[in-house]
Amino acid sequence: MDHLTLENPVFVTYAIASALMVLKIMGQGWMTVFRMMRKDGGFVSPEDLRKTPLNPNPRPEQLEIDDYVDRSRRMHRNDLENIPGFWMAGFLMVMVAPPLWLAQVLMYGFVAARAAHAVAYATKQTHDIRATFYTIGSLIVIFMALYALWALLL
Amino acid sequence: MDHLTLENPVFVTYAIASALMVLKIMGQGWMTVFRMMRKDGGFVSPEDLRKTPLNPNPRPEQLEIDDYVDRSRRMHRNDLENIPGFWMAGFLMVMVAPPLWLAQVLMYGFVAARAAHAVAYATKQTHDIRATFYTIGSLIVIFMALYALWALLL
Amino acid sequence: MDHLTLENPVFVTYAIASALMVLKIMGQGWMTVFRMMRKDGGFVSPEDLRKTPLNPNPRPEQLEIDDYVDRSRRMHRNDLENIPGFWMAGFLMVMVAPPLWLAQVLMYGFVAARAAHAVAYATKQTHDIRATFYTIGSLIVIFMALYALWALLL
Repeated sequence: MDHLTLENPVFVTYAIASALMVLKIMGQGWMTVFRMMRKDGGFVSPEDLRKTPLNPNPRPEQLEIDDYVDRSRRMHRNDLENIPGFWMAGFLMVMVAPPLWLAQVLMYGFVAARAAHAVAYATKQTHDIRATFYTIGSLIVIFMALYALWALLL
Repeated sequence: MDHLTLENPVFVTYAIASALMVLKIMGQGWMTVFRMMRKDGGFVSPEDLRKTPLNPNPRPEQLEIDDYVDRSRRMHRNDLENIPGFWMAGFLMVMVAPPLWLAQVLMYGFVAARAAHAVAYATKQTHDIRATFYTIGSLIVIFMALYALWALLL
Repeated sequence: MDHLTLENPVFVTYAIASALMVLKIMGQGWMTVFRMMRKDGGFVSPEDLRKTPLNPNPRPEQLEIDDYVDRSRRMHRNDLENIPGFWMAGFLMVMVAPPLWLAQVLMYGFVAARAAHAVAYATKQTHDIRATFYTIGSLIVIFMALYALWALLL
């Protein structure tokens, strides 16, 4: 029986959630670009101080760490620490054929938790709020990996 | 012939190794959380200095770099540089149908090398020990990618 | 109909591009190792100042940030922000069965854009050149994710 087809609603759930997470991770790169352009700073490479069409007015302080820009990089790093693990755990979940409702709760729950984490981080909410959404996303991935491992080893 | 089923022992090997690596990568995030709570510091966002139930006694030095916490972040980064590459190379390996013994040696070897790397890093072993386990893991992934590429291009 | 087989030329395109990107990401780690050895510095862990066969002459300044080494780490980070997203989006692309020419243009285009980005970064080309190749790669991944999402939701 093949689980990896568009006829399998669990796979479709996984595919939609994963595509949304691709857009999240790539969009985070563009948020960093946007913030660097808006602040005209927060750069990280010495050669970025050369005069170019995108940087007509270079100054040494453009290489200083700027929280507005660095915040987007930290969000990106947090994504990298969580989303590829979701992609892998979700794939294994599809292969061990969970009930559809469980896949939907876990996978759309992960997407919602990561979206809420991003909003909390970008708007500088208190640590405990951000940590709550991080925890939900992380525990979902851990649960999916354990669920798959359990089914594989039985 | 379908390689992506639980009837294929090469796929099961890949799935077990990959699930363990999901747990490793997500667990590394929790090691950072544990170390931040134990040291009551090593934070990275300015808003983490607000008084909250999880931080009842905020102080500016909580934002300073702390090696105990930063070590866990460096371990996490090293995971991100190696484990997603393993997931992809392992998947391709499954698709080109290697002998089972080879898949087991490579994939469980990768898991063992990364576990040993984590212990060496966390316990501050000398660089050369840590580098040895990094090298084993990295060469396994490179070998798997070349093995798959070879089979694909033949 | 099974898309995940070596008989499907779209999958083979994806597999070749993905294997090349595994080699890119793992090779970046070795570029960092090579640069650390050549500069005899740019280390990040305090224990790397111990005298070992690989570091016979330890000095405190070996822990200072060195642009030659750090550049390779920044390239690695940029890879991590883009390549796993490509692997996932490409997988979904395969599953929704695009025309072969489109898959080839996008996937080999991504490989070429990342290779050009790496050369531009390593040789310290002006920011705008590096940004152009980053943009091409990033837009390809975003397009693939949207293409798959569109097919999944129709």
